[in-house]
Amino acid sequence: METEVKLLLSDLETIKDSLVDASHRTSIDRRVIAVHFLLIILMIQERLEKIYGTGKLANAQRSKIKDMSAEVVDSNPYSRLMALQRMGIVANYERIREYSVAIVGIGGVGSVTAEMLTRCGIGRLLLYDYDKVELANMNRLFFHPGQVGMTKTDAAVQTLSDINPDVVLESYTLNITTVSGFETFMSSLKNKSFRPDKEGSGVDLVLSCVDNYEARMVVNQACNELGQTWMESGVSENAVSGHIQLLIPGETACFACAPPLVVASGVDEGTLKREGVCAASLPTTMGVIAGLLVQNTLKYLLKFGKVTPYLGYNALKDFFPSMEMKPNPQCWNGACLERQKEFAVVVRPVRRAEEEVEEETECLHADNEWNISVVDDSQHSNASSCLPEGLVRELPDADEYREPVFGSEATDDLEDLKRQLEALQAE
Amino acid sequence: METEVKLLLSDLETIKDSLVDASHRTSIDRRVIAVHFLLIILMIQERLEKIYGTGKLANAQRSKIKDMSAEVVDSNPYSRLMALQRMGIVANYERIREYSVAIVGIGGVGSVTAEMLTRCGIGRLLLYDYDKVELANMNRLFFHPGQVGMTKTDAAVQTLSDINPDVVLESYTLNITTVSGFETFMSSLKNKSFRPDKEGSGVDLVLSCVDNYEARMVVNQACNELGQTWMESGVSENAVSGHIQLLIPGETACFACAPPLVVASGVDEGTLKREGVCAASLPTTMGVIAGLLVQNTLKYLLKFGKVTPYLGYNALKDFFPSMEMKPNPQCWNGACLERQKEFAVVVRPVRRAEEEVEEETECLHADNEWNISVVDDSQHSNASSCLPEGLVRELPDADEYREPVFGSEATDDLEDLKRQLEALQAE
Repeated sequence: METEVKLLLSDLETIKDSLVDASHRTSIDRRVIAVHFLLIILMIQERLEKIYGTGKLANAQRSKIKDMSAEVVDSNPYSRLMALQRMGIVANYERIREYSVAIVGIGGVGSVTAEMLTRCGIGRLLLYDYDKVELANMNRLFFHPGQVGMTKTDAAVQTLSDINPDVVLESYTLNITTVSGFETFMSSLKNKSFRPDKEGSGVDLVLSCVDNYEARMVVNQACNELGQTWMESGVSENAVSGHIQLLIPGETACFACAPPLVVASGVDEGTLKREGVCAASLPTTMGVIAGLLVQNTLKYLLKFGKVTPYLGYNALKDFFPSMEMKPNPQCWNGACLERQKEFAVVVRPVRRAEEEVEEETECLHADNEWNISVVDDSQHSNASSCLPEGLVRELPDADEYREPVFGSEATDDLEDLKRQLEALQAE
Repeated sequence: METEVKLLLSDLETIKDSLVDASHRTSIDRRVIAVHFLLIILMIQERLEKIYGTGKLANAQRSKIKDMSAEVVDSNPYSRLMALQRMGIVANYERIREYSVAIVGIGGVGSVTAEMLTRCGIGRLLLYDYDKVELANMNRLFFHPGQVGMTKTDAAVQTLSDINPDVVLESYTLNITTVSGFETFMSSLKNKSFRPDKEGSGVDLVLSCVDNYEARMVVNQACNELGQTWMESGVSENAVSGHIQLLIPGETACFACAPPLVVASGVDEGTLKREGVCAASLPTTMGVIAGLLVQNTLKYLLKFGKVTPYLGYNALKDFFPSMEMKPNPQCWNGACLERQKEFAVVVRPVRRAEEEVEEETECLHADNEWNISVVDDSQHSNASSCLPEGLVRELPDADEYREPVFGSEATDDLEDLKRQLEALQAE
């Protein structure tokens, strides 16, 4: 925006010059008129300068910065980030410029996620949304009333490019749940022009910030097909709980293996919006979830701290359950099963050799419906590997999506689940 | 800003009309010139309209809204908040308009805190800061490069009034640690013109979002003197941990009774900035802390969920310790001791009668230096009332501030602390 105002001001300067010339002409009539309009142009210039603050237009949009510097000066937008290296938190912060992150859904969580990554100086952001900004979105961070009516992607690019021109922004105004939308989504993820030597897909991470089950399943499908690591996020309809989850195809549960507890609320979300029911939302819950999501993203990309497999947030009690979920060997998603096979053949044996696993504790209950198993994690106490205190599984609606596969095994499985429960209680 | 652009456009319209008149004059010379300038004015109008998006200027800044409505339409900025009532979370959301919140420090945490409360439709915000916006602040949310050089208070008022014109904003560009700054701070908190019938001070809550020990002690002093409930917040210098804390003078520990663990890092923060050492910061950690702080504020003001007495955030491990701290009967802050006496005489006996306390478990270790005692809390398991797993007290530097009072009791106390520890381990 400021760039265009600057252009306009420079054009006005040219007109002013021509008027100054005209005011020296011989014809008195033309001189009077020229001076008259000169005053008008000066007035317009002055008012535009006033609107944007005197002298600030020159540095309103900062120029691009070639290398991230750790220099401690007020004019360095990266000084506080590069300080993470001196503080011993991150080994090489500047590597963030090599990474591409795709954000699906630019709503209450996705927009703040995009802003945080932009301010952190991420290399490239891919943004997907088909919705428009409304006044009804103003109870969440990021969008401004002046952007009402714009597409969320356009409004986001406007704000983000102003905040940090170093970030490469790609926006896709489309619905990934349509056939053509899904095709564009897939091809944009595969595109490697930003870093041609990158292995796998063209992005380092996909972040799902959508608000419905259908779109989550589509992201899950795309990532399973591509073998693409991604993170899920969600906020409940009563606005006071949420979650983030890391999904590595073949290695962890996919979204079809076991949907997060918060999302599985027994309501068909697809019908919710059409009926005009208004879900509650808060900038606090969405800001916290975006913060936890981007923090996990930074830990994953820049290799520091412990990347969290699943983290819940219950705002009423300030309760933060965490857990790990292994993939379901009977998952109905074919691409998930393929990735599981690959992981079992290629990755798992190598890791086992490296980690010198002492005991084989996996697949204790291979035939249990949820495939809940105690995950080997030497850094954690036993308590964190089972369902955390206070968590209740929303079984009924999740079952709907699984019945064709699990129907015949239901009885055996219930027995097994009972035994497992008794074993846990006996500990 | 949009208002001024609209004014300019309306003035250009007037000029255009006069030019249209002039183009009908008899003199061919004047007609040609008039048409020439008419085209220039049209060009300027068109470019300004384009910069702000066609037709959007009319509703760029929305008008004030008299009553909060729960109507589910895209044009209602409060629909998703009023939905909290229908969802059974909040009994009366609209009461938020009666409340005043003071935010001290408009930096990485304070600015996001102010934006969240503004978007929630808080009645009145009082903002305190003396600093200016720098490019070095751009790694945190809220401020934009175009605001570099403005005071943080001015820039905040500019952004917040645009987001929600219903919120009454008061900004104070001052340093509360100076004598005159403290006087203005105190008188602004006492001012009841917004709600003359309010009991106590003129504000419902003070939020401390400052980045140094000295300013925290000043907020603590002011709130102890006024008997004002407040919340503390902080982020560590390595950017990967933070905390929030509720302080009710006389009822809970004040900041002088026991400074939060994260702040007590053994470094004199006052000298840190002067030496040009650059602390690390992240938009994620600060966004999470602001989110938790405002969530706790909403729970406190609108009476829902459990208001958290202390909540820590360790980003590396995604660990969220919580605890409660009783006031220190030997606190060196005189105003704290006065509030403790009032609470013991007036409030505590009433509460005891109401709650029908079965056992007297208080003051088990009246002579222990930290006055750590098991707080009676029927909603919680025993585990949460002692120091949570993974927390380590930063004793050495906190001792500096306490030595004059506790020096002679150190030996007895250590014995007591040992006994307490052994008792906990035996459980």
